[in-house]
Amino acid sequence: MNVLITGGAGFIGSHLCDYLITDHNVTALDNLSLGRKSNIEHLFHKENFKFIEADMNNSSMMDEVFAIGKFDRIYHLAANSDIAQSHAKPSIDFKNTFLTTYNLLECMKNHNVKEIIFASSSAIYGETQGPIDEDYGPLKPISHYGAAKLSSEGFITSFVKNYEMQAWILRFPNVVGERTTHGVIFDFINKLRKDNTALEVLGDGEQYKPYLYVKDLVKAIILVSETTSEPVNIYNVGVNSRTKVRDIAKFVIRAMQLNSKIEYTGNTIGWVGDVPQFSYNLSKINKLGWKAQVTSDEAVQKSINYILQNKL
Amino acid sequence: MNVLITGGAGFIGSHLCDYLITDHNVTALDNLSLGRKSNIEHLFHKENFKFIEADMNNSSMMDEVFAIGKFDRIYHLAANSDIAQSHAKPSIDFKNTFLTTYNLLECMKNHNVKEIIFASSSAIYGETQGPIDEDYGPLKPISHYGAAKLSSEGFITSFVKNYEMQAWILRFPNVVGERTTHGVIFDFINKLRKDNTALEVLGDGEQYKPYLYVKDLVKAIILVSETTSEPVNIYNVGVNSRTKVRDIAKFVIRAMQLNSKIEYTGNTIGWVGDVPQFSYNLSKINKLGWKAQVTSDEAVQKSINYILQNKL
Repeated sequence: MNVLITGGAGFIGSHLCDYLITDHNVTALDNLSLGRKSNIEHLFHKENFKFIEADMNNSSMMDEVFAIGKFDRIYHLAANSDIAQSHAKPSIDFKNTFLTTYNLLECMKNHNVKEIIFASSSAIYGETQGPIDEDYGPLKPISHYGAAKLSSEGFITSFVKNYEMQAWILRFPNVVGERTTHGVIFDFINKLRKDNTALEVLGDGEQYKPYLYVKDLVKAIILVSETTSEPVNIYNVGVNSRTKVRDIAKFVIRAMQLNSKIEYTGNTIGWVGDVPQFSYNLSKINKLGWKAQVTSDEAVQKSINYILQNKL
Repeated sequence: MNVLITGGAGFIGSHLCDYLITDHNVTALDNLSLGRKSNIEHLFHKENFKFIEADMNNSSMMDEVFAIGKFDRIYHLAANSDIAQSHAKPSIDFKNTFLTTYNLLECMKNHNVKEIIFASSSAIYGETQGPIDEDYGPLKPISHYGAAKLSSEGFITSFVKNYEMQAWILRFPNVVGERTTHGVIFDFINKLRKDNTALEVLGDGEQYKPYLYVKDLVKAIILVSETTSEPVNIYNVGVNSRTKVRDIAKFVIRAMQLNSKIEYTGNTIGWVGDVPQFSYNLSKINKLGWKAQVTSDEAVQKSINYILQNKL
């Protein structure tokens, strides 16, 4: 199969490249704003791998990519993933998280590509209580990132219906592990590199969320897309355990062999648009035979070790 | 209060102008693509009424409108409302139904306007069974119009959270009555004007939906916005009765005093993206003390009479 992975040099996209290269012709597309060539360099020598540096909002270039690629399936992961950023500038998520999807769908329609696997997010649910299943409503995202992911889902389902496409929508939680590019773990390490006497933590440290290990996620993406066959297949993906931000701070300090004091800024959220507490009901994906193998705490620690070992 | 009504020369928007002009300074904005000056001409002599012909996707013009208007509240009704159109050209709903909303929200943020009443739609729910309440999920719109309305809702809720705005989201059903601009009733009348021997009906005529009378809708908009005070207030608006498309055909033929034969094209839907059966659970809005006064059949007949009397 000829597959296109948007955001293919990114954190999750590059792991998907590694997996899919065994059986498919893989084109990875990335504008390298968050992705890194180093994540996929080890694949450059392979005949069935191709990397294209391109901006998905450049329609004529995308049109060319599609004309040459003759894709059977798209794994759409390209997005702004630094959620906190767009409070000051909502157009970041409008353009990089939503418009990329809309333009991709137009391209798929015009080039008769029928299958899309989409990286959606728990952020579409907004502030919720208790384990959330896929039918939860009403959807009131509180970040522009969540709004852009919800908008993407909406147009994906209307394109599926109008042009006989098929979609697999996976709603990711926080994802961590090797090749991570940013987020709370990075922030803590960078702060401590500047000043290792004290670590400032935004909020009260009680934010409590599941962190899924990236290699578990890749297995879930493959399983859902291979075993479900509705026109639109929607699945939460997550891990049953969770990690508190105050524990992430402790893990980082310990891994860096420091003795820093932790100082909390003291609100219940880290930044506007942050969802402080979240948990998924995962019974739908569990029924397919998938369960995360790595706990939330272990996944966070793998991420910390990766960043420190690679001196990122 | 200074209020802006987008789509103010349109079918529903012009009725809102009529209502709000009693107590407020009303600015009606419309690009006149579907709206008509004749809908609001009778207000032109009023000191507290102003009409602006503008395209909401023209950011610099919108910026000027906001700088001059000093609005306290926006009633956002501007949208493509001809749902069937965008199957061939999805960008119609992307631009006219969604992008208008996104640009409006940016304007509100930049000019510190805090309140938005939004005309959402039953189309966000997609194909559903049985009475649908506001918490229904998952949302899988099958028309680009529904996708664009869902996307608008998503960004409205994220803007509310990020910039301390407040929103009233009303999910409209099919709306009919005086000043209607297009839709199935228009289509039937126009077909019969061309050839009154036979009326071709797309589908099997069994499409069965509630048609709400526009003046009932205006009362609902006012009530919801005046009596609810959450950051985001979401309400279905509808009428408990429904009308079959085959009955609309009969009403039109009778009102035109014809004896035309009705011919069905024979599928269960009229066009791709059409939701053939729909009904709302209205208990949330009923609890506020609102109920439609005009039945679905009566509302359809008022629409037919209006079109015929005004020779539209």
